Amino acid sequence: MTPQGITILGSTGSIGRNTLRVVETLDAGQRFRVVGLAAGRNVARLAEQIERHRPELVAVETEERAGELRAELARRDVPPPRRVLSGEAGLVEVATHAEASCVVSAAVGAVGLVPTLRALEAGKRVALANKETLVMAGELMTRAARASGAELLPVDSEHNALHQCLRGERREEVRRLVLTASGGPFRTKGAAEMEAATVEEAMRHPTWNMGAKITIDSATLMNKGLEVIEAHWLFDFGPDSIDIVVHPESIVHSMVELADGSVIAQMGVTDMRHAIQYALTYPERRPCDLPQLDLTRLGALHFEAPDFVRFPCLGLAYRALREGGTQPAALNAANEEAVAAFLDSRLRLTDIARVIESVMDASEPRPAESLSAILDADAQARAGARAEISRLCGAVRIVA
Amino acid sequence: MTPQGITILGSTGSIGRNTLRVVETLDAGQRFRVVGLAAGRNVARLAEQIERHRPELVAVETEERAGELRAELARRDVPPPRRVLSGEAGLVEVATHAEASCVVSAAVGAVGLVPTLRALEAGKRVALANKETLVMAGELMTRAARASGAELLPVDSEHNALHQCLRGERREEVRRLVLTASGGPFRTKGAAEMEAATVEEAMRHPTWNMGAKITIDSATLMNKGLEVIEAHWLFDFGPDSIDIVVHPESIVHSMVELADGSVIAQMGVTDMRHAIQYALTYPERRPCDLPQLDLTRLGALHFEAPDFVRFPCLGLAYRALREGGTQPAALNAANEEAVAAFLDSRLRLTDIARVIESVMDASEPRPAESLSAILDADAQARAGARAEISRLCGAVRIVA
Repeated sequence: MTPQGITILGSTGSIGRNTLRVVETLDAGQRFRVVGLAAGRNVARLAEQIERHRPELVAVETEERAGELRAELARRDVPPPRRVLSGEAGLVEVATHAEASCVVSAAVGAVGLVPTLRALEAGKRVALANKETLVMAGELMTRAARASGAELLPVDSEHNALHQCLRGERREEVRRLVLTASGGPFRTKGAAEMEAATVEEAMRHPTWNMGAKITIDSATLMNKGLEVIEAHWLFDFGPDSIDIVVHPESIVHSMVELADGSVIAQMGVTDMRHAIQYALTYPERRPCDLPQLDLTRLGALHFEAPDFVRFPCLGLAYRALREGGTQPAALNAANEEAVAAFLDSRLRLTDIARVIESVMDASEPRPAESLSAILDADAQARAGARAEISRLCGAVRIVA
Repeated sequence: MTPQGITILGSTGSIGRNTLRVVETLDAGQRFRVVGLAAGRNVARLAEQIERHRPELVAVETEERAGELRAELARRDVPPPRRVLSGEAGLVEVATHAEASCVVSAAVGAVGLVPTLRALEAGKRVALANKETLVMAGELMTRAARASGAELLPVDSEHNALHQCLRGERREEVRRLVLTASGGPFRTKGAAEMEAATVEEAMRHPTWNMGAKITIDSATLMNKGLEVIEAHWLFDFGPDSIDIVVHPESIVHSMVELADGSVIAQMGVTDMRHAIQYALTYPERRPCDLPQLDLTRLGALHFEAPDFVRFPCLGLAYRALREGGTQPAALNAANEEAVAAFLDSRLRLTDIARVIESVMDASEPRPAESLSAILDADAQARAGARAEISRLCGAVRIVA
């Protein structure tokens, strides 16, 4: 077996690290060769990964980080990769590396947008963990994939599940996609508790162990809202054909309802390696060393309707999808700013939706047909969000 | 749309009646034309069905029943079908009717064996509800289907679910089939209660409304045991790759576990029309007027391991599959006799397994390569079962 070249955007994050674990175990490490890694600031972990996988190409956030990385590699006595790059140009180089047939797009937030688009334009298989990319620029991404014949395979467990459920089905015989949601740490909490939630409380995800941004998005259910938009672009269903069911155990990763009323569900243990491996090896399924799902040990799976009142981010995401054009990009940008402010303790959890709503109210949806239109909408939404965050911070200070 | 010809073996039973409902509603009744019906003794209901569907060919159990049917039709002023036949020859004629492209095999028990085999030999699509047919003669059936190119589509909700779960999967990438079982009315009962169970108690199936034989089989879990054997023949998996999970709500109809550990499940409301329609229209899925599955209204799905001690029929079925040859036919025959004796209040529920075990202990597995070998094993097992039933009846009398 000749190993396939693979690159990872966001290699030091949760998806990136799990991807490397999959690569190491899959077919006894013979299936893939890591030819490129891109990371942000975690130079120590990146150095470790370089030591182990010896990629030819590495990218970090800034030239300063590149210097730190070289020093760290020297300290470890690890020969530096042939090329150490930085900034968006570095990310794009990693995403379009000639020797990679597959790119794992797992950089967090809008920074992954351009590199992922370039990977699709270059005809690479993209294993997509960065949902913001599709939320912002779904039309551009899917158009680029169609034009180059690139495959876009979702790594998000829900969309990966939908992909699996749809394998044997005809598009026109699918009635509805049903995304499951754990409900997050505030599923059973009242509005007052959510209003007063600390960063620590919001970070306590009940089932999945993930990065900070996505964990907060899971607490507000914006994560599920973004997933609705992502599902729209991946599978070409409208907002009325994409539903959400809260399922606290996160065992049913998602479902599809077919024309005859039959429901196909994908289940598994809550470990991202399943979806990562699936996206890397599709259409093959290879043995995976994760524990077997044992429903009899779990005993019960629960389901409940989502609460659009306590979780207004859900409705905002549907609204953005319905308004279309650049509105999902505005939603996403406002959310990123608001989540960052919450993580900095500058904003209350429940203010995240308020920031987003005020940005959406002020945004005019425009066609999302070019990167510049999307980046403009993103920039404008961020500016609006920052202003609203300052206003709310002021308000909070006055109250306190 | 030119309607396709369809015949039904066992038209007055639960599956037969539901098949006619599906035929009437599917594509506004334009998809199928009922060209043949076969029933046992329920002449009044058969006459109604003839009045409504006007098949050309009808078969009943005996010439006497045929006379009763003619009289009933005359009384209703319904012109009799072109041909009214009786006995196995009549069933075979209905099963091989030249104008039928699809045969629904829903006669209860061993009586369906020969007609179903003839339908497969004639290259008909067989929508199979009669699991005994595959249990007794799986090798003959699957060989006949391969030789003629006939499609064998399961109507049993569990196997129908497995068929759906397997649609998009490669055979060699499937690790395990998992049949769900409601657990029957004695799921939470103790051994003493089961020993003393009345026919009425055993007939109280928690989720499915079915005929008497299959309902008793569901109470002993022999139904699930027979389904393990059926799954073996339908999907070509060995006993170690077919598992059972008790799932009292019967919403997850069955599951498959794939090489990578992912589990695909099929769910639906508990109505046989789903599976019947699927088997008739496969590979198409057509709209169905059944209520939508709403997991949030159900709230929870439960799963537990089956109890092989309280339900020894399960282990006996696995044993028959492992011993192979004519042993599953012997198991099935002994079970049919024992269930009939229980329904006649001549045997205790818990004696059903005792009868079957004694028959299996006395049976020598022979190759199940001919109908005569199978029918010999069937006859021998029935004789053995009757003797054991008499012995146990005597024992009961002495105790009482």
